[in-house]
Amino acid sequence: MDADHEGRTRTCQEALSEGECLVLFPGPNLQYLTGFRDEPMERHLLLFVPREGEPVFLAPTMYDDQLADTHVSDVRLWDDGEDPRAYIGEILGRIDPDRLLVDDRLWARFTQDLQAVTDAEFGLASEVLADLRVKKDGAEIDAIREASALADRVSEEVRGLDAVGMTERELAREIDSRLADLGGEGPSFETIVAAGENGARPHHRHGDREIGTGDPVVLDFGTRFDGYPSDQTRTIVFGGEPSEGFEEIHEVVREAQGAAVERVEPGVPAEAVDRAARDVIEDAGYGERFTHRTGHGVGIEVHEPPYIVAGNTRELEEGMVFSVEPGIYLEGEFGVRIEDLVVVTETGCERLNDSNRGP
Amino acid sequence: MDADHEGRTRTCQEALSEGECLVLFPGPNLQYLTGFRDEPMERHLLLFVPREGEPVFLAPTMYDDQLADTHVSDVRLWDDGEDPRAYIGEILGRIDPDRLLVDDRLWARFTQDLQAVTDAEFGLASEVLADLRVKKDGAEIDAIREASALADRVSEEVRGLDAVGMTERELAREIDSRLADLGGEGPSFETIVAAGENGARPHHRHGDREIGTGDPVVLDFGTRFDGYPSDQTRTIVFGGEPSEGFEEIHEVVREAQGAAVERVEPGVPAEAVDRAARDVIEDAGYGERFTHRTGHGVGIEVHEPPYIVAGNTRELEEGMVFSVEPGIYLEGEFGVRIEDLVVVTETGCERLNDSNRGP
Repeated sequence: MDADHEGRTRTCQEALSEGECLVLFPGPNLQYLTGFRDEPMERHLLLFVPREGEPVFLAPTMYDDQLADTHVSDVRLWDDGEDPRAYIGEILGRIDPDRLLVDDRLWARFTQDLQAVTDAEFGLASEVLADLRVKKDGAEIDAIREASALADRVSEEVRGLDAVGMTERELAREIDSRLADLGGEGPSFETIVAAGENGARPHHRHGDREIGTGDPVVLDFGTRFDGYPSDQTRTIVFGGEPSEGFEEIHEVVREAQGAAVERVEPGVPAEAVDRAARDVIEDAGYGERFTHRTGHGVGIEVHEPPYIVAGNTRELEEGMVFSVEPGIYLEGEFGVRIEDLVVVTETGCERLNDSNRGP
Repeated sequence: MDADHEGRTRTCQEALSEGECLVLFPGPNLQYLTGFRDEPMERHLLLFVPREGEPVFLAPTMYDDQLADTHVSDVRLWDDGEDPRAYIGEILGRIDPDRLLVDDRLWARFTQDLQAVTDAEFGLASEVLADLRVKKDGAEIDAIREASALADRVSEEVRGLDAVGMTERELAREIDSRLADLGGEGPSFETIVAAGENGARPHHRHGDREIGTGDPVVLDFGTRFDGYPSDQTRTIVFGGEPSEGFEEIHEVVREAQGAAVERVEPGVPAEAVDRAARDVIEDAGYGERFTHRTGHGVGIEVHEPPYIVAGNTRELEEGMVFSVEPGIYLEGEFGVRIEDLVVVTETGCERLNDSNRGP
């Protein structure tokens, strides 16, 4: 299914209030509305989306060709050596907004450039875009499903490797290479291979530590397909007898993950899913070792709403996609995390990952 | 040579004016002052650096371990489920700054959180940090030199491949894999392999186009070493007779690049280096086909000051590192770009790349 960027832009304009204007910057919001994919950059590349009338790109001349592939036809180009800030004043002078909803990720240097030429009030683009982006359309779910299938296949392949003696970095490269072989568009995030005590640091990526016999290894990775990421985690022992207590803890995490997935259906508050996982872990006596939220939405961003966390009373809706990934971390020893993506359906949810969750 | 993050932080504090306080966010500035390396993130992780007294981290609990590796000992942790914005008010209440110099890349959502709790004026961290970061110290030059040597080796290896029939994507993966094999810490940026007409789009990355006989292919890549990137470009024909006019244009670009490098020495304005390259290309009649600046500084960021561009009258100083990369782009046909990094020395400059620049 092809993405309808023009339709998304129109829907977004209809959601703006009188006098509001969006200002987007390379990143997820801009990709969502136009399909333009590039990293945030130090050159001024901004999309102005007024409530009425046509959107306008301000962009460096060298991006002319790439922008021609989008549905936005009004493109003001500036050359290296020119000062693009003069054009900002000109564009905003014509639109004359009362309120600028700037990209949530707009860099401060660009925010300050905008503030220098307008008296408009400032808000965030997410005020309008978050509600549109949080429920995925068919093209988006297709892409995440395919990206998840690629990660599942690699997860199964990796389980069969003789990884004892490899370093975390070597195994991470092996994973990245297999994801690419299957057609993935690059890792969703820096692949995590965290062996033994490194697994107790939830955001350790990978290093020179060798994988030893009996080491629990946290494998957290994903790849993009059609611009959308997968994200799944398994905790595996590649050979030998696992560290003491590992199997019990693995089982607790697996039960917690299952309980949380069971809880997902439309109308349930996001925090109830977190609570379901946390209850299992607290009952087993590891409540303080589960130091992060249960999950995060996944869309163009690997981390986006809805956040599955205490205090988030937002009700789940059909089409939301998020991770369910409880963990237990024993400092200096090991960690265990198990993660799947789920999509909320009319009556419950569907797991987008189905690879072996065992140790 | 090891980086002295504590010394850099003290130098930075001395450069602040009375009442100023830095607010940094994961990214290059934070890496420069503390060695903390992570992507920008949607969770509140901020470093406050007042003019006097100790710096303070506000950070999610899960980053506790990573932050313990830095020289900053005052770390305020917040758990998922808490509202970190209350802590911002508390920290700023104690520091009581008149002026916040926020990270140039601070996301608008965090800027707006800061604005909600302070009446301080806002500026940019670069007002203080840019002058410190633009001149590289020994540890930094060592790292860039090593990263450049890795890219040079891969450039020579790739030149020997029989790449005709490979897709751009396949060749990009081959390059990435070879960089990693040599110990690179991942690509500096998404590797560019732009064959034939794609080479005329300066920021094309790579796609499914096959490399054909006679196609000029722009190869622009680099890798990180010890946190610092390399960045070099060669334009190569892998087999067969090149497109008409290619050899002449390649020679013009090569001359332009050499003329620009020749111009580099302390005291010369950055724009004069751009002019030296542009003069050669204009004289050859391709002035309008050279659509970007001649170069950019390279440090923790792949693109940072000094920019080698018309209008930049800043004088070059010993220790500055930047790219020299003129190009000529014929839309629908092909592009040619040749790029090396140089470091400004006491009397001129040293090229950090020495791989074959030929077609």
